[in-house]
Amino acid sequence: MAMEGYRGFLGLLVSALLVGFLSVIFTLVWVLHYREGLGWDGTALEFNWHPVLVVTGFVFIQGIAIIVYRLPWTWKCSKLLMKSIHAGLNAVAAILAIISLVAVFDFHNARNIPNMYSLHSWVGLTAVILYILQLLLGFFVFLLPWAPLSLRALLMPIHVYSGLLVFGTVIATVLMGVTEKLIFALKNPAYSTFPPEGVFTNTLGLLILVFGALIFWIVTRPQWKRPKEPSSVLLQPNGGAPEGMEGSMAMNFGNMDKSDSELNSEAAARKRNITLDEAGQRSTM
Amino acid sequence: MAMEGYRGFLGLLVSALLVGFLSVIFTLVWVLHYREGLGWDGTALEFNWHPVLVVTGFVFIQGIAIIVYRLPWTWKCSKLLMKSIHAGLNAVAAILAIISLVAVFDFHNARNIPNMYSLHSWVGLTAVILYILQLLLGFFVFLLPWAPLSLRALLMPIHVYSGLLVFGTVIATVLMGVTEKLIFALKNPAYSTFPPEGVFTNTLGLLILVFGALIFWIVTRPQWKRPKEPSSVLLQPNGGAPEGMEGSMAMNFGNMDKSDSELNSEAAARKRNITLDEAGQRSTM
Repeated sequence: MAMEGYRGFLGLLVSALLVGFLSVIFTLVWVLHYREGLGWDGTALEFNWHPVLVVTGFVFIQGIAIIVYRLPWTWKCSKLLMKSIHAGLNAVAAILAIISLVAVFDFHNARNIPNMYSLHSWVGLTAVILYILQLLLGFFVFLLPWAPLSLRALLMPIHVYSGLLVFGTVIATVLMGVTEKLIFALKNPAYSTFPPEGVFTNTLGLLILVFGALIFWIVTRPQWKRPKEPSSVLLQPNGGAPEGMEGSMAMNFGNMDKSDSELNSEAAARKRNITLDEAGQRSTM
Repeated sequence: MAMEGYRGFLGLLVSALLVGFLSVIFTLVWVLHYREGLGWDGTALEFNWHPVLVVTGFVFIQGIAIIVYRLPWTWKCSKLLMKSIHAGLNAVAAILAIISLVAVFDFHNARNIPNMYSLHSWVGLTAVILYILQLLLGFFVFLLPWAPLSLRALLMPIHVYSGLLVFGTVIATVLMGVTEKLIFALKNPAYSTFPPEGVFTNTLGLLILVFGALIFWIVTRPQWKRPKEPSSVLLQPNGGAPEGMEGSMAMNFGNMDKSDSELNSEAAARKRNITLDEAGQRSTM
């Protein structure tokens, strides 16, 4: 299927993948080159899994999961398949986020450092809990076939909104985490003397912010939304709501609000009408 | 004019105002009760203007500026007036943000603390620069009457996107700033021992995050958009683009994308048609 502004989409998608991938690489270089490396022994090596898993799962994979419906090559795939990929990527991200929490709690407990005192920990734990609730809501309401269409229509705007809110909150939490870690770790030379690790990790922070900005742009362009398949409606003459219909419904509400998506299909209908009118005019001229 | 879901809007607006106001009060209590107070003498008293001005201007006033078109009581006001209020609030926020930067640079210079070494300062300065560019773009393209409609239509989606992006980035920067300040300031008792100031200021961070979440919800509900005045189009029979038309155009693209707002007016038209059809049916039955 053709996509309006395909080249622009492709450029931004490649940029997002590149910046996201670079963020993961920068995090690995940070912990392996500037910090102590990786391990699972209660020392700083175990703590270092925290940024690696968060940036890989909770930032990069979550970001991809958010825009997966917008890849035009997937528009010929079934909605159920795409929902499974969306849910699967988010589940992987959630698991990595949980392991990243275990790493930091283990490290704190081994070193007798109190848990949950910082704003970073308060906001971060809230984000993980909301993310898991969001995953469960998505699984039971949108992936399993039993929820009524009215419930899906009611919850989809909340699902989309809270998805983007949690993604933004995760990025804010990462920036707080980088700030905390650099202040704690960079003593001699101090963070304020522009040591290479400080400049490098600040750059990592900017990369993560740019990644978030690219994902936010891609997911809020109405012209890049997965189109509604007319077949999914036309093939249900009895007015029931089997899988095809549900798929179309969920897609309709997939990345935008109810009224938004209604309007989207309406504009497409108008476009088709205009094209038909033009064709009619030409044939009579 | 009637608004769909007016009670919900009112509840969220009151919540946003309350949480935003509480954030400002919490910031004042923080610097006046827990910290050194306010002054302009190169000491910590001058630094303390930084959080006060940022939370008041760059968070609270910017947040109100973002949703000002959505207040249904203003829908009878001219678009030019509303644009002036939107621009005015953002200008006040920008001035407060700039003074807040002067306070922190002054403080650093007086104490021989290096400037611009932290991720907080990198992201924060970027946000202020983008905000000023956004303000200038808005003033010259959308407030002054000379920009062609095609340029307005092209730039409005970017204006809306970057407005929300900068707002989110400002909130992330505030959370980083709170983190930095608490780690620097809370030494005895340390931040990690849950001193009252730590818990209080963490709560301030949560309040600011909730304020951002409320503004983000209010501004992304399509049903709460300022409606297009039909008179502004009907009163321009010559097809020109005087103030009324420009106002309507800018309003159209005020809080959403081009296609989005086209669709919005289209749905309103359809709604009117349906109502007329229904009335017609009733009269013949």
